[in-house]
Amino acid sequence: MLRHMPSPLHFYFDFISPYGYFASLRIEEIAARHGRAVEWHSMLLGVSVLKVMGLKALMETPLKSDYVRLDVLRYARKHGLEFGRDVDAPIFNPLPAGRAFHWVKRHHPALAVPLAHALFDAAWREGRDLATAADVAAVHLPVGLDADELRAAIEGPEAAALLRSAVEASLKQGIFGSPMIVVDGEPFWGVERLPDVDEWLARGGW
Amino acid sequence: MLRHMPSPLHFYFDFISPYGYFASLRIEEIAARHGRAVEWHSMLLGVSVLKVMGLKALMETPLKSDYVRLDVLRYARKHGLEFGRDVDAPIFNPLPAGRAFHWVKRHHPALAVPLAHALFDAAWREGRDLATAADVAAVHLPVGLDADELRAAIEGPEAAALLRSAVEASLKQGIFGSPMIVVDGEPFWGVERLPDVDEWLARGGW
Repeated sequence: MLRHMPSPLHFYFDFISPYGYFASLRIEEIAARHGRAVEWHSMLLGVSVLKVMGLKALMETPLKSDYVRLDVLRYARKHGLEFGRDVDAPIFNPLPAGRAFHWVKRHHPALAVPLAHALFDAAWREGRDLATAADVAAVHLPVGLDADELRAAIEGPEAAALLRSAVEASLKQGIFGSPMIVVDGEPFWGVERLPDVDEWLARGGW
Repeated sequence: MLRHMPSPLHFYFDFISPYGYFASLRIEEIAARHGRAVEWHSMLLGVSVLKVMGLKALMETPLKSDYVRLDVLRYARKHGLEFGRDVDAPIFNPLPAGRAFHWVKRHHPALAVPLAHALFDAAWREGRDLATAADVAAVHLPVGLDADELRAAIEGPEAAALLRSAVEASLKQGIFGSPMIVVDGEPFWGVERLPDVDEWLARGGW
């Protein structure tokens, strides 16, 4: 039997990444224009950047932190986005959001992307911290997700294991940043590469 | 007396940076479209990235090195550029090229940009190492530059002092990457931000 569906784009992001948030608002439209679906994958910059690559957190890197603050706000202005978070404020622990995402992706797959949008929106438009299971369960959840069930799941062992294995799988794919988009095996890093993703899909690579 | 000339764009680059090379091929055209000149500044990633920021060289960073190799070759293919250097080969010492650039900028200012193009072309299109004063003096120099004079200058104390003070000045401006372009005080990092530079100039910012 032949498969007629083209393979999905793979979209990797960390909820603590403003550039991941920005890409989350555009990736579905780009994929749809080329008849592609998107599989969403939350990953952890704290594992790839800090542990595997041996670098520093962006906002703890001299010179670059000043640039990133300016660049993020410039992007938000250009795209008319509300941006409710102080880029200099300490970032929240990403584990509860990542665990929630992967648990929902497993148990309520149709709700995983709506949940990701809700979490990104709460973190970056509203500027809310998502540091605990209660914080995550308190966002504007998609219809069909029960806050109490989600909260309990985030605190359970399965969600932690799902996130851990997703992060391991992402590292095996060479994923290190947020956003990264993989199109038919070809990786693109950074929200400013989205036009290249679009062109790659249109031309079938180059 | 009023100044009627708009201020130049400031273009920062390191000769060891393929992305700096890529930007060097497009920056003058973007600036000219908006009636701007470009002041070119060579800087040293080895000072900003390694010493000030405490990070690693790109090609010594796990995961990122694989991505950069792929991304650089993809950019070259997209833009129809010959690319003669093995991205994985050890990079040459950038000091002779940087010293040559700043000495020429001081003593033969009209030849500094032609020299920068010649050095970038030798390093990245031809794949030549520019590790010594002799290597630098052996590139296809712009008419008006004497190879023996240049070679002696690179080895003299003035060129070293000029590069050192240019690098210090760039760090004070918050410059850390290659390429970085500063438009009326607004910094843009990365060759993929050139469309934003163009739009910023067209709209007068946003």
